[in-house]
Amino acid sequence: MYKLLCVRFFVSDHNHSIHYAYLDHKLLGLYEKDKMSTRFFEFVGGDAGIWHVLRTDTLVGEPLLEVRRLDVVSGSKIKSRPDVGWVLRGITSNERYVVREEKSELVAKQQGLGRPEATCAALIPIRKNATWWALTQDERRSIFEEHSNHIKIGLHYLPAVARRLHHCRDLSENEPFDFLTWFEFAPAHESEFDQMVAELRASEEWKYIDREVDIRLVRET
Amino acid sequence: MYKLLCVRFFVSDHNHSIHYAYLDHKLLGLYEKDKMSTRFFEFVGGDAGIWHVLRTDTLVGEPLLEVRRLDVVSGSKIKSRPDVGWVLRGITSNERYVVREEKSELVAKQQGLGRPEATCAALIPIRKNATWWALTQDERRSIFEEHSNHIKIGLHYLPAVARRLHHCRDLSENEPFDFLTWFEFAPAHESEFDQMVAELRASEEWKYIDREVDIRLVRET
Repeated sequence: MYKLLCVRFFVSDHNHSIHYAYLDHKLLGLYEKDKMSTRFFEFVGGDAGIWHVLRTDTLVGEPLLEVRRLDVVSGSKIKSRPDVGWVLRGITSNERYVVREEKSELVAKQQGLGRPEATCAALIPIRKNATWWALTQDERRSIFEEHSNHIKIGLHYLPAVARRLHHCRDLSENEPFDFLTWFEFAPAHESEFDQMVAELRASEEWKYIDREVDIRLVRET
Repeated sequence: MYKLLCVRFFVSDHNHSIHYAYLDHKLLGLYEKDKMSTRFFEFVGGDAGIWHVLRTDTLVGEPLLEVRRLDVVSGSKIKSRPDVGWVLRGITSNERYVVREEKSELVAKQQGLGRPEATCAALIPIRKNATWWALTQDERRSIFEEHSNHIKIGLHYLPAVARRLHHCRDLSENEPFDFLTWFEFAPAHESEFDQMVAELRASEEWKYIDREVDIRLVRET
């Protein structure tokens, strides 16, 4: 009645952090075929992937192990990886703060990932503190946009910067970050990108961030 | 460097739905000790648990297999279960629609789970359709409260009915439901509980629900 798809091993390191690894089964092909994943992504830091790491800066909180390359893997393509530095997982979801008027402007201006000229990327994992998560929806929205202009700042840098936001907090109760944001832009727009993250980091919202790492990458040519 | 904690097998049934099972390892005790889970819960339908199933009604969408008992297991106590009917998983999270004034009223009136007199329970898993998830935050809040009085209806039945909401949608992209709500109440309040769910089901919000099962239970004495 049941077919084995894959096996996941849960292990702990010396810090008691939880990691896992996959073992492919001969039936994994079936799994991949049947589940065309579109929301779940893994960012695998190690020695594989088309993205070369240029720089890893820890802005606040515990650093991430420095790795040479990053592989961005969508859910349907997850496979065994015997030796990686780290894996960050996230899922795309419905927007939590954007109102209709903002959404329409975002949709009109934003570009998709994978543009040939967008050879630069940034992966910025962040975690917000317990105070943030104890706020109510209206309070969080107020800090997010009315006091911090998060959406307005982002809109200003469209269409140059393309982005995809991944949520981690509700995947499990043990994720190392709350959000992973992946950005792509052309080399000519790097200083604009730096300006954008500087504006966000100076905002009231960023007072609630207790872990942030900024990983800059360039695509293999 | 790494210690094995547990092994999870992913299998598919004839409908290609994904299920999983755990195999305990001798080190699982360590895992449980180190990770005091408070947000992650599993609802296990089968032949075990202190909750006896009285009735399983499918209101809309695909039914759930009827089972005799339900076990409510928190994340730190997850263990191997060789033969169960189904497992629904959910995680408690920050509130998505409640504003500060409503939150204060909820906190003042609501009761915790596990009251000795609350021997009746209901598990109501629901799924919302794609139209709902494509709405923006302001549109969802408007349907949720301004047009459907979801919070106001719930407040009316406090403190008789205690509840805990679990989110499933962002645990993975393959969860069978979006939300699992667990309710506890005394037998004397059963008709009020029925009235509450009837009011909610008549609201505009419920037009977006495309799967709902209502499982009524009584605690083992």
